[in-house]
Amino acid sequence: MSRRVLVIGIGMGDPAALTLRAVEAINRADVFVLLDKGEAAAELIAMREAILAAHRRAPWRTVTLASPARGQEGRDTSGGYRAGVEAWHGARAALLARAIAEEVPEGGTGALLVWGDPMLYDSTLRVLERAAGMGVPFEVEVVPGITAVQALCAAHRMPLNGIGENVEVTTGRRVAQATPAAPAFVVLLDDGAGLAALMARGWDGQVWWGAYLGTKDEMLLAGRLMEVGAEVLRRRAEARARKGWVMDVWLGRDAAGRPSHSA
Amino acid sequence: MSRRVLVIGIGMGDPAALTLRAVEAINRADVFVLLDKGEAAAELIAMREAILAAHRRAPWRTVTLASPARGQEGRDTSGGYRAGVEAWHGARAALLARAIAEEVPEGGTGALLVWGDPMLYDSTLRVLERAAGMGVPFEVEVVPGITAVQALCAAHRMPLNGIGENVEVTTGRRVAQATPAAPAFVVLLDDGAGLAALMARGWDGQVWWGAYLGTKDEMLLAGRLMEVGAEVLRRRAEARARKGWVMDVWLGRDAAGRPSHSA
Repeated sequence: MSRRVLVIGIGMGDPAALTLRAVEAINRADVFVLLDKGEAAAELIAMREAILAAHRRAPWRTVTLASPARGQEGRDTSGGYRAGVEAWHGARAALLARAIAEEVPEGGTGALLVWGDPMLYDSTLRVLERAAGMGVPFEVEVVPGITAVQALCAAHRMPLNGIGENVEVTTGRRVAQATPAAPAFVVLLDDGAGLAALMARGWDGQVWWGAYLGTKDEMLLAGRLMEVGAEVLRRRAEARARKGWVMDVWLGRDAAGRPSHSA
Repeated sequence: MSRRVLVIGIGMGDPAALTLRAVEAINRADVFVLLDKGEAAAELIAMREAILAAHRRAPWRTVTLASPARGQEGRDTSGGYRAGVEAWHGARAALLARAIAEEVPEGGTGALLVWGDPMLYDSTLRVLERAAGMGVPFEVEVVPGITAVQALCAAHRMPLNGIGENVEVTTGRRVAQATPAAPAFVVLLDDGAGLAALMARGWDGQVWWGAYLGTKDEMLLAGRLMEVGAEVLRRRAEARARKGWVMDVWLGRDAAGRPSHSA
């Protein structure tokens, strides 16, 4: 009678972006385990609750874990970004292992909800892998969700890749360090520094940006970076200040590799 | 009373992988336009019909366009891969423009179904963009679907990216030419030549492979390329010979960049 943990991708905030499999999984769970970052905005919590309310057909039980703060062992220590993140994952894994042992009954099913898809710049699968060595045994089942990258391309009605071309999936941190070599690149986890660095380098290419994708607050902007970059950063900062959080993503294509339909 | 064309991602074959938005879109369409490649296997057509049958609540009408053959103007001409593809897109765009004008009523809605997500290595959006300049005006609406990349990661219960790392999304053709520089890369449209080229180069890394993802015929294999690569190619060739078609995808990670949970 093994325990089962569902890791369910719930998309970017639009309840209709869930797959039928995700809806089925939400209705299979005995308990939802929320491993919140301390900084999670009230609106994000409300969005997640709205998704559950829209799709769950029976009452549900939620256990919220107080996630360890990421401050001291986080981004800025001498051990570097990756070591800090791994230490933080270890602390979260211990909490999660205990919650699975105590809150998920034998033969029962727990669920973790993940924005977007658990495969993409999300720590849940890594944390669960570590938790598996710490407490009771459990099986993991992953349910994919629509990522920010897909929501962005759909909103702009454009393909991610050029014909036969490669695409780099990367982070704002990496773009701030160096311009990607790929003809197209999609940037997640950018606090604005990646976009600003490309502007500072005079990068001659086009960007497609989106924030709060699929929600009533969706924002879209596209054009040559030199023409729209400052406006993207302004709108992003304004929205973040007003709402307290922002989830956004952008796609860049160099001038040579622009898709034919936007030339 | 503008015409509307829905481009609906339907995932990789599992009817439950559709989003609620895709189901809604399927029920909004007045007509489905199928722009088949000539070589489409009967089983693929049956899978698509099964998805429609599972989700469409009213009778539906389908128009199948005889797609221009890709042979002469295709992969192997002197103009190169991209020029060949673009010529082929032009021919398909003309067919599609005519079908939209003749088969979609004014103010009505046509729909195109796409395996996976329309953003990723699919020509539908590019062909529609060209068709828009050829006939009656229409608006395009894109509905994302679960890609092979997501189905692969979910089946293997693993993240796509390492912590803070970049990922290259690329093709078998490109991998056959050169090994990607990114610590992780996911390879689509590989007829086996990409994987075989990495083996010939003695590439020391790990691969996660999947075919027919999310269907009853799902095949999965993972391990060091040098240990499992030959078996992947054998199973792929055997399945393709037996079924007449294969949809597969694989993820590679170099030895240094392997995620902690698979070390």
